[in-house]
Amino acid sequence: MDLSPHTDLDVADLHPAVGDPALNSMNFLNEVAQRYPDAVSLAAGRPYEEFFAVADLHRHLETFRAYLADDLGYGPAQVHRALFQYGRTKGIIHDLVARNLAVDEEITVDPESIVVTVGCQEAMLLVLRALRAGPADVLLAVAPTYVGLTGAARLVDLPVRPVAGGPAGIDLADLRAQVRRARAEGLRPRACYVMPDFANPSGASIGLADRRRLLDLAAAEDLLLIEDNPYGLFHADGAGRVPTLKALDTGRRVVYLGSFAKTVLPGARVGYLVADQRVRDADGTVGPLADQLAKIKSMVTVNTSAIAQAVVGGALLAHGCSLVAANTRERAAYARNLRHLVDGLARRFPDPSPVRWNVPAGGFFAVVSVPFPVDDALLRRSAEDYGVLWTPMAHFYDDTAPVAALRLSISAVTPGQIDTGLDRLAALIADELARSPVPVARG
Amino acid sequence: MDLSPHTDLDVADLHPAVGDPALNSMNFLNEVAQRYPDAVSLAAGRPYEEFFAVADLHRHLETFRAYLADDLGYGPAQVHRALFQYGRTKGIIHDLVARNLAVDEEITVDPESIVVTVGCQEAMLLVLRALRAGPADVLLAVAPTYVGLTGAARLVDLPVRPVAGGPAGIDLADLRAQVRRARAEGLRPRACYVMPDFANPSGASIGLADRRRLLDLAAAEDLLLIEDNPYGLFHADGAGRVPTLKALDTGRRVVYLGSFAKTVLPGARVGYLVADQRVRDADGTVGPLADQLAKIKSMVTVNTSAIAQAVVGGALLAHGCSLVAANTRERAAYARNLRHLVDGLARRFPDPSPVRWNVPAGGFFAVVSVPFPVDDALLRRSAEDYGVLWTPMAHFYDDTAPVAALRLSISAVTPGQIDTGLDRLAALIADELARSPVPVARG
Repeated sequence: MDLSPHTDLDVADLHPAVGDPALNSMNFLNEVAQRYPDAVSLAAGRPYEEFFAVADLHRHLETFRAYLADDLGYGPAQVHRALFQYGRTKGIIHDLVARNLAVDEEITVDPESIVVTVGCQEAMLLVLRALRAGPADVLLAVAPTYVGLTGAARLVDLPVRPVAGGPAGIDLADLRAQVRRARAEGLRPRACYVMPDFANPSGASIGLADRRRLLDLAAAEDLLLIEDNPYGLFHADGAGRVPTLKALDTGRRVVYLGSFAKTVLPGARVGYLVADQRVRDADGTVGPLADQLAKIKSMVTVNTSAIAQAVVGGALLAHGCSLVAANTRERAAYARNLRHLVDGLARRFPDPSPVRWNVPAGGFFAVVSVPFPVDDALLRRSAEDYGVLWTPMAHFYDDTAPVAALRLSISAVTPGQIDTGLDRLAALIADELARSPVPVARG
Repeated sequence: MDLSPHTDLDVADLHPAVGDPALNSMNFLNEVAQRYPDAVSLAAGRPYEEFFAVADLHRHLETFRAYLADDLGYGPAQVHRALFQYGRTKGIIHDLVARNLAVDEEITVDPESIVVTVGCQEAMLLVLRALRAGPADVLLAVAPTYVGLTGAARLVDLPVRPVAGGPAGIDLADLRAQVRRARAEGLRPRACYVMPDFANPSGASIGLADRRRLLDLAAAEDLLLIEDNPYGLFHADGAGRVPTLKALDTGRRVVYLGSFAKTVLPGARVGYLVADQRVRDADGTVGPLADQLAKIKSMVTVNTSAIAQAVVGGALLAHGCSLVAANTRERAAYARNLRHLVDGLARRFPDPSPVRWNVPAGGFFAVVSVPFPVDDALLRRSAEDYGVLWTPMAHFYDDTAPVAALRLSISAVTPGQIDTGLDRLAALIADELARSPVPVARG
């Protein structure tokens, strides 16, 4: 190695992922947020904080302890072992997760098909690690794509090919074309990653008819679907919810990823996956894909913290395993904020305007399109000179083409902060329009 | 894919790690333990359970909350954010971990060089993922090797080459030879993994003089050392402790892996790494290797559960950040058990005997050598017919050669259980000696 005396390693000597934009994107966004703590953040996707209470942690722990002792009949030594010791690789709240899926999602799964993970991020990593068997394997993902998916794919050397999203959430013709193009190139598309409900970052949702078509297409093309559903509970209008792909999945085509970060608390770092695909092992035995993923998990994190699982388990038990019931106040706050954002945009950019935005049916995010490129330099200027943070949509595309759009989040702010943030954003956009009136391609 | 109608995938379509012995080893051992719950287990490496109390979880959480509020001056909103929300990728108890390393290990590190991880297993995965930059990279590891290291290496496609361990803990001449052999083959040995204190599984420790020689050799050969230290506190005799490699490391040659599983509780799944190596980034800036590893962590688990960190942080604070002080009772129990095991072996296999064992200076494990191969079939018979569990040493070698040794653990049993277990083991060995008196090679 040719190093200056002050360094021990060169980043070029490390796995290429550490230099990849996908892994540096979050770092950059966090750094900007930390440098401008007084800016109004329409960037943060973390959940609403108003309802957090430390007493709840103690209460949930005690609820779960009582469940082990009273409902499951554990003696004190067994309770200690469950909470303090190494535990089952696939988790200790799998039965409660299965009940939650039945109650809230009408998804019926064998608890043995569930792996409780360290947040949804670990679930993604496990699935992608398993599916990347060799250099011909590729992943398809609806673009724009959650950056955590792209980052996990980088860590397992799995190329990601974009599938057009669009206002309907997924362009099924493009999915079919991408599958066939990959195969024509000698590649093996292993799965398509999709967030059908109020996607991060687009806010788009897939309608019921398209969900059925997507499942049919997956069967016809022999493709797995990876369904990521962190925001599904948070519909914002009276129309109610659309069934998840997994609820409609009769052919075991869907690996379902769940998160308790938005529905219980991020600090527990508890998520899960449902992988009921039947895998034939080398010795001819057949078991759920979850068992293969658990083997990988045993070498990533051994098992998910029992204490963290206990807190989430207690929260589930407190509401009959319904997170819909547990999140009545939160859902109302998010719906109120999303309406406030969309109404605020309409007031500040009345027709005719070169500024456009979508009107999501729920979730945390909306996308604003502007007639100029939105890059990291503009975000820095927005933070420094205008006091408002948002997320350049370019971070969610896996190429370097300019993107003329930004993501706004409503999850961790008040209506008053939304107003202040939008006023500042409108000032920034007005100044930018005065500077560069030239339209650009991607919106 | 050519599948029978009842399966969706074939294991051959998944990453080869899932079929690897290293990943199936723990599964097999757990399965045997579950099938024979009434057998005495001299296999389990989990910590002593007698001192666990659910009230401690609540107390530690409250201690950490009070530390945030009173010592760090956090307001209620900041406390909620720290405990409930997504957090700093490198962790929130890094200052306490640095204090612990100073107090207990005389290791002085910048807290910014620490990454708090989901157990030591994630720490291993992050380091190996970073170091595996390309197909020429290999890892050296002292054999026999902790199976979690081998498994993590499999997940990142990093070949592991054994370095002879032996009674001195590491054969330095063999390490030099292996480094040179790998380089002669066009390979790049990135690091050598070593557990210098009371290693799992061998029980061997490296003496002070050899530690210094190992550091010199690492400098001369431009090699990193990965020091894994889960058992260092648990010395069993009056001789006291030997400084860790990291405490002796003046050249930033050592990446140090720490675990709170044995010193606080496994159920938190909190470990850490110290990586103060200076890395030059693509833009010329220089920062600790910890920052590069944190980027990887952000795509594996995002951050370590704040609640789990709070429990461990509270436990550290309760004892002035000294785990030596926190583990007085535990250390005495392990030392008593280890003496009881070694004395019990001596009584049951008096000289002259073909059965031999080492006398570790501490830790959880000792190795018994016998004059016949010890395989999984023998373990099953031991569990079924003799009612005693132990671990075949073959699981800790990365090849298929027969191994005539087994590992005994004293960490989760009473002296009475050790007596019962040894009586049963002696009966098994006597029967085996009667069946197959032929000596085999590796002991």
